[in-house]
Amino acid sequence: MENNIYDNDKFFDGYIKLRKDEGRNYNDLLEQPAMSRLLPNMQGRRVLDVGCGFGENCRQFSHDGASYIVGVDISKNMLALAEKNTDDPLIRYYNYDMMDIEKVGEKFDLIYSSLAVHYIENFAELMRKIGNMTYEDGELLLSMEHPVSTASRGQKVDYLTDKNGNEFAYKLSNYMKPGIRKDEWFVSDVVIYHRPMGVIINDIICAGFRITSVIEPMPTSEAIEILPALKKEIIRPSFLIIKAVKILEE
Amino acid sequence: MENNIYDNDKFFDGYIKLRKDEGRNYNDLLEQPAMSRLLPNMQGRRVLDVGCGFGENCRQFSHDGASYIVGVDISKNMLALAEKNTDDPLIRYYNYDMMDIEKVGEKFDLIYSSLAVHYIENFAELMRKIGNMTYEDGELLLSMEHPVSTASRGQKVDYLTDKNGNEFAYKLSNYMKPGIRKDEWFVSDVVIYHRPMGVIINDIICAGFRITSVIEPMPTSEAIEILPALKKEIIRPSFLIIKAVKILEE
Repeated sequence: MENNIYDNDKFFDGYIKLRKDEGRNYNDLLEQPAMSRLLPNMQGRRVLDVGCGFGENCRQFSHDGASYIVGVDISKNMLALAEKNTDDPLIRYYNYDMMDIEKVGEKFDLIYSSLAVHYIENFAELMRKIGNMTYEDGELLLSMEHPVSTASRGQKVDYLTDKNGNEFAYKLSNYMKPGIRKDEWFVSDVVIYHRPMGVIINDIICAGFRITSVIEPMPTSEAIEILPALKKEIIRPSFLIIKAVKILEE
Repeated sequence: MENNIYDNDKFFDGYIKLRKDEGRNYNDLLEQPAMSRLLPNMQGRRVLDVGCGFGENCRQFSHDGASYIVGVDISKNMLALAEKNTDDPLIRYYNYDMMDIEKVGEKFDLIYSSLAVHYIENFAELMRKIGNMTYEDGELLLSMEHPVSTASRGQKVDYLTDKNGNEFAYKLSNYMKPGIRKDEWFVSDVVIYHRPMGVIINDIICAGFRITSVIEPMPTSEAIEILPALKKEIIRPSFLIIKAVKILEE
């Protein structure tokens, strides 16, 4: 089952405030620009957005020419906001746990998921379900927290600083130990799941996909000026983006 | 050009001593068992071993039924040992820089390379050359030092210890900064090249391969008993192994 932290009101308020500070957060400065560059031509595509949140990507896909868009999210809070901000007959939202994604009961040309899959424990099973819902030659575009970041999640002090207080190294631990990680993010004990890189990639391959790109996005110098914390991305990346194409099982 | 540290006599002596302590080093306990599990059936295969060292894998491939084996190494020291220990008409050794691999002038069913590619600066170019030398549906099996290990290479203190002196975290730095790393290994200033995971994988894909497996090998409990330092592999892996198959360019 998916972790539904977005229906915790304190978390939700904090998250909405963060995302409303448009252009000044990790999503807008780092993850979303990299995801956009990897999007295929949307014209006429049937798109499934797994963990669609408040629907901003669904609306963008419609604007870019997609013919049909389904957004799925476990959070009623997020979907209420999505419905409120969407007036588009091409977009349909479903309030499902990601692990029940097969309830959508359709196939798609593009499966898109932004920063959602680290909330689920059984990644291999989710990939199998997603594989079954992707047409041959259909594409998968996933972003998630990077394994070198999730590995040590919950450590009291993440970065080591030099004499001048500048961060120069990250305390990496338990990288090869998959499983639950708890940390504070707006509220205490937000649960995510860590998996080493090899596990993530092999699970996608085993679900019938051919990996076409693995991106560890880096900030532009403009982005670092807006959000100086982004300069730490050179020490270790926050995000991992994987693009893949569905192939026939051999 | 490839870094030819193996023709430094002091380095060579140290390395040979390490590898002669059979069954008690990282190669024999961690990297080689994982590589062996990924080897395809060798029967009738034409195999190229890139950075073949003293030829132990070439001899094994012949024993396992390969029809023709070429071993390439930049080190005259290593190849002298390889020639001395090989009496096999199916095996041919060439003293080439890895970056001149195309001088072999033939195509192969399997390109194998064990812990060699981190010595070359231009990985993308090496992969292109290797791609050109691999038959369609031919396979690539590569091991290298893991990016989370090479990233911080040359740091004075790698691991952080707790009150009881147990290592619990690794100081990861400069992960997203590709390029030269220098460290002491038998001699000072041994040069290797670091590349983030995404760069490694994308370079292999761009050379016309489909990734079929990404392995970050973990030691068995028996291996940890023999070499206790291996328990640190749970903090961060030493090796990265990638298997891929050549596909037609689209």
